[in-house]
Amino acid sequence: MEINYVNSVFEQMTLEEKIAQLIQLTRDFYQADSKKVSLTGPMDEMGINKAVVHNSGSVINAIGARDVIKIQREHLKNNRLGIPLLFMGDIVHGYRTIFPVPLAIGCSWDMDLAEASAAIAAREASAAGLHVTFAPMVDLVRDPRWGRVMESTGEDPYLNSLFARAFVRGFQGSQLNDNTRVVACVKHFAAYGAPEGGRDYNTVDMSERQLRESYLPAYKAALDEGCEMVMTSFNTVDGIPVTGNTHLLRDILRGEWGFDGVLISDWGSVKELIPHGVAVDESEAANKAMQAGVDIEMMTPCYVNNLKELVENGALDETLIDEAVLRILNLKHKLGLFENPYRGADEKLEQEILLCEPHRQAARELAAKSCVLLKNENVLPLQKHQKIALIGPFAQNSDILGPWSIYGSQTEAVQLYDGLKGKVDPSQLFAAKGCDIQTGTHEQVEEAVQTAREADVIVLALGENSEMSGEAGSRADIRLPNVQLELIAKLKQLNKPMVAVLFNGRPLDLHGVIENVDSILEAWFPGTEGGSAIADILFGDTNPSGRLTMSFPYSVGQIPVYYNHFNTGRPKNAPQAQERYVSQYLDIPNEPLFPFGFGLSYTTFSYGEVNLSAEYVTEEEPLIVSVEVTNTGRVEGEEVIQLYIRDMVGSVVRPLKELKGFQKISLRPGETKNIEFRITVDQLSYYHPDLQYKSDLGAFSVFVGPNSRDVSALRFELRNSSSDCSAK
Amino acid sequence: MEINYVNSVFEQMTLEEKIAQLIQLTRDFYQADSKKVSLTGPMDEMGINKAVVHNSGSVINAIGARDVIKIQREHLKNNRLGIPLLFMGDIVHGYRTIFPVPLAIGCSWDMDLAEASAAIAAREASAAGLHVTFAPMVDLVRDPRWGRVMESTGEDPYLNSLFARAFVRGFQGSQLNDNTRVVACVKHFAAYGAPEGGRDYNTVDMSERQLRESYLPAYKAALDEGCEMVMTSFNTVDGIPVTGNTHLLRDILRGEWGFDGVLISDWGSVKELIPHGVAVDESEAANKAMQAGVDIEMMTPCYVNNLKELVENGALDETLIDEAVLRILNLKHKLGLFENPYRGADEKLEQEILLCEPHRQAARELAAKSCVLLKNENVLPLQKHQKIALIGPFAQNSDILGPWSIYGSQTEAVQLYDGLKGKVDPSQLFAAKGCDIQTGTHEQVEEAVQTAREADVIVLALGENSEMSGEAGSRADIRLPNVQLELIAKLKQLNKPMVAVLFNGRPLDLHGVIENVDSILEAWFPGTEGGSAIADILFGDTNPSGRLTMSFPYSVGQIPVYYNHFNTGRPKNAPQAQERYVSQYLDIPNEPLFPFGFGLSYTTFSYGEVNLSAEYVTEEEPLIVSVEVTNTGRVEGEEVIQLYIRDMVGSVVRPLKELKGFQKISLRPGETKNIEFRITVDQLSYYHPDLQYKSDLGAFSVFVGPNSRDVSALRFELRNSSSDCSAK
Repeated sequence: MEINYVNSVFEQMTLEEKIAQLIQLTRDFYQADSKKVSLTGPMDEMGINKAVVHNSGSVINAIGARDVIKIQREHLKNNRLGIPLLFMGDIVHGYRTIFPVPLAIGCSWDMDLAEASAAIAAREASAAGLHVTFAPMVDLVRDPRWGRVMESTGEDPYLNSLFARAFVRGFQGSQLNDNTRVVACVKHFAAYGAPEGGRDYNTVDMSERQLRESYLPAYKAALDEGCEMVMTSFNTVDGIPVTGNTHLLRDILRGEWGFDGVLISDWGSVKELIPHGVAVDESEAANKAMQAGVDIEMMTPCYVNNLKELVENGALDETLIDEAVLRILNLKHKLGLFENPYRGADEKLEQEILLCEPHRQAARELAAKSCVLLKNENVLPLQKHQKIALIGPFAQNSDILGPWSIYGSQTEAVQLYDGLKGKVDPSQLFAAKGCDIQTGTHEQVEEAVQTAREADVIVLALGENSEMSGEAGSRADIRLPNVQLELIAKLKQLNKPMVAVLFNGRPLDLHGVIENVDSILEAWFPGTEGGSAIADILFGDTNPSGRLTMSFPYSVGQIPVYYNHFNTGRPKNAPQAQERYVSQYLDIPNEPLFPFGFGLSYTTFSYGEVNLSAEYVTEEEPLIVSVEVTNTGRVEGEEVIQLYIRDMVGSVVRPLKELKGFQKISLRPGETKNIEFRITVDQLSYYHPDLQYKSDLGAFSVFVGPNSRDVSALRFELRNSSSDCSAK
Repeated sequence: MEINYVNSVFEQMTLEEKIAQLIQLTRDFYQADSKKVSLTGPMDEMGINKAVVHNSGSVINAIGARDVIKIQREHLKNNRLGIPLLFMGDIVHGYRTIFPVPLAIGCSWDMDLAEASAAIAAREASAAGLHVTFAPMVDLVRDPRWGRVMESTGEDPYLNSLFARAFVRGFQGSQLNDNTRVVACVKHFAAYGAPEGGRDYNTVDMSERQLRESYLPAYKAALDEGCEMVMTSFNTVDGIPVTGNTHLLRDILRGEWGFDGVLISDWGSVKELIPHGVAVDESEAANKAMQAGVDIEMMTPCYVNNLKELVENGALDETLIDEAVLRILNLKHKLGLFENPYRGADEKLEQEILLCEPHRQAARELAAKSCVLLKNENVLPLQKHQKIALIGPFAQNSDILGPWSIYGSQTEAVQLYDGLKGKVDPSQLFAAKGCDIQTGTHEQVEEAVQTAREADVIVLALGENSEMSGEAGSRADIRLPNVQLELIAKLKQLNKPMVAVLFNGRPLDLHGVIENVDSILEAWFPGTEGGSAIADILFGDTNPSGRLTMSFPYSVGQIPVYYNHFNTGRPKNAPQAQERYVSQYLDIPNEPLFPFGFGLSYTTFSYGEVNLSAEYVTEEEPLIVSVEVTNTGRVEGEEVIQLYIRDMVGSVVRPLKELKGFQKISLRPGETKNIEFRITVDQLSYYHPDLQYKSDLGAFSVFVGPNSRDVSALRFELRNSSSDCSAK
């Protein structure tokens, strides 16, 4: 079928049909006999009728092969031109097989596993009839109060960009008519990750420089990888809600970047132009969103109820509607929906592959690779002969899938207790809750203390429930709930080795934990195979290799704290730093508790001297940075060797460090590998005062090390050519 | 003497002499025989010689008539052309008579008293030989972690602008040849009040819209009032340190605003372009600052050591140096220094007026008007027959002048104990320290408990020492120090009425205080007459009338919290707000503990119905808002009636409330006054997407009330003309 077919369908569409194509509704609207949606219910409230539903273009969160096929079949009967529905949904870190939350996946620094997780999610979701997933979320994050940091891969634009690409490859594959893949929709464009005060949906304000330098690159990377769709964000940028922001959507996204795919609003964000205070009513909201280039309006009826009148009274050019409809029809065409509107949906295949053993294995592997060992004073790995007291609200708790795992099932999740049970004789394993997540009783504590008395080692399973992060899950206090800190303090009195395993969706303030336990394993929300994966780590069957991609603040009063900040004019500990009059807090360090890139292993690695192939880099000649890394411990392990760069003098201030490369390698005990990085001129560019992206001649520092703090530094220069020595 | 004289002096100056005119040094450099500065000391380190000192243009913090006259006399001998020095210094809230810190003065909402305080500071400082004060500081502040919030008048651009004007009037008077006045230097241009993480000197990043809407107005207001000088800030704006920021300094300050006065760097901020990473060395730093338009370099030698070579090698146009020198000479001329280089300096007058009784009285009045009564449950005012236990580290503590009171003397300050002693029989007054500011002993607590046992009421004198705020005084935890919270908890067990009087430089997180005491009086750093003024308030001789000009956050995790924020697309408690999916924290309210504009009185006020003179406002016809306010209590009191406006629909998001007017009135018991506000079209303007400043036709809300939270709201419209009904 040719694109001509799209045109011929399009030619036959009435204006009403075109406009209806732009709305996206939940599955409830497609169940004619359901009580959930009736003409006196949601449809009526929204002011839409059955004709709109019959001509609508896409559905959100209708999934499952049987359901999808039924809805599509019914829809094709009701739709005059037989235009199939697009089925979209939130498949963020797995469909039925739930992988760790994206922030955890970020800590794996493993693009292959990240891609594989998305491919598995796509395989499961496509069998369940899904065409589009609202992922990846690539918002850069610096504020752990914000609940949605768990959906991001962290605070670094370069790493986020790599993950954005990996997820897009995983979801989409190489061609969209591959029925085992789904379309990726990158979100939330743009800068949703910087809400003021860490409060979800709150105002975002930053310079366009900051936007372009830190926040935009990962969205752009997703599009460069071929991502077919983009979702707008809830927040304002420069005073204008993104869903009505022509500068971001028309000038940058569609203009500069040439994006011609489908742009969808977030849930209700077109209508939210009204409470934002930039549209007086639904008609103005519709007009602003359409002018800005939003094709699909999710879950509010501003378009369907107003676009026609806006065209008729001349406020809106009909060609904008035509363009939006054509983008949607073209996506349907690319997916092959006109030939096979049931694309991929297959009940039998669902039975076969959802949560199949290979998928579980992949989830287990990625969960283990996502765990970050933050502290370890001779307690981990556990010995199989030890008597273990597993204490805490996550000891036997299935709420480990994390937010945005709506099609996963907690009943299918492996609890930590069950994971450990697979490793040791059950007679060696004692469990007690100690407290609930946010509340507790004296009896619970007493039971925990009694249980712990019998053990050689205490494993504390602590954390936040999944409602404490995720969308609208902002916390002003990011410590563990008090009741859990009290439990730690109580158990501390037993003077036994203690390991804390943390289940949570954000970097925490670890006061009350760090000083009381011997080891801390950050397990995040590890997904379906969480308990097994953590057991693999705790017993050393897998050597921890995760590295933080978001700084752990010293305390909430330090926020925002992130590694790629600027030097200021009065840096602390600089050669001439004045004692008081430097940029510092009186009461806490400037440095986070755990920096970006940090994570321990059960083995140790030593770094040799860092070598540069030359003292300079030129346009023609890249610079080679090399270092020998040796496993100096007793077990095999993986190390993430990180390369950072600093432009010493710019026409605008430059970050103290910027990640520009890394290599994750495995080394056997005693083994040494020589690691090489290539530095090219394009890695040295940045946005100049006029927002031109280019590099400056002159001095740079290069840093190599196991994390963003513990690095060796060397200098080099960027020169015009190898014979030029005039660079400053 | 005519301006021609300036030109004739200027014509005779060599390039070296011109360049030396641009440096500002401390007094040490002018004491030829002092050991502090020798050619092997600071001068040598800075690479400057005596010729530079002899040709320098200004001195920082050399003050006192005797000293100034001596230095000036010596200088005129050494200076070939007899160009007098300008004497500048940090007279921020008083010279010898110390007024409350500016944040406290802000809480007075009293422009007359603010102006008078600056006039007194000017009178004292000018007698001591000063020509220029580095004040007012008008940086808008939203982050109480930042130590310099005590130097600002708060979070509102309108109120900050009024205070900026009042201070400039007070310092400068109506003409500069008035020897009892000093030149004002508004600072810190620009946006220094928004350092990331509340950490002093840290990166500032915001949209130009935010900059213009919130941060720039108060600087502009100071200049509109005739402020003669401007100081640059330490921070970056849009990636460029302000001291080298041509957009801010050339385009906006000198271009758009037409400022042709003297622009001075902050201490060392020219050289700090190097650690900022935008200048490779002092030469580039000098060039960037000069290109940007900085006339005087404070305390670093980049100009004197490099400008000549920069001119000679063609990197810098000499006319930029000429312009800077002429601005400085013109300021000297305006001050009459060429006729009388000892302008104002008068040892006898110093004796007479420094800390004279009228000045003390003015300080006492303003300190009392600056106190904010935050809570009062039937304890205040104190009764003169009560036995009072005055407990806490500020009971008998003279560290109440606050930061930036370098020429005030703590020995001259009235401690709270001494203030109370003036009101009651000493036999009724018991005092104990209870603890030090940040540390304490068991014995101290015990003594306090014993002392308190004998009393009818406990007055707790708590707070931060003056080093805990001010420059480089950032705190990540803004609660009272733990030892003080423990003292409160301990005394709480006595079950006696408790009043907390707080001495501090920032809004605090009052957890640990608010729930344990019956009354809280925020006294800030009240200055020389602090103890007397607070005693006036505590005993009801003065009825508290202060109103907060900076929100008190619920906790540090809520920062930034300020009243004039935006609505977001998902406001909490909006008509259609979804339960979870709204902009909120899970663990704390969105609202601050105490909002902008809040403060209690010993009487009560009732507000009648708010009336509008019409349903609309037009260019020709302002709208009159009127309300009757009645003193419904038993004592005379002052009320600050506040008027806020909201533009319901803008082309960019608009604040939920913006202060547009207020009236501070005094009412006797039972008295009623009718208050009128005038709303004009220019009050309704804002920066549109294209940064044009204009207003939109359409709906507005007007709010009237005693603070930014407890208001009555009405709607009106902005129309083209009174006959036009087409506005949306």
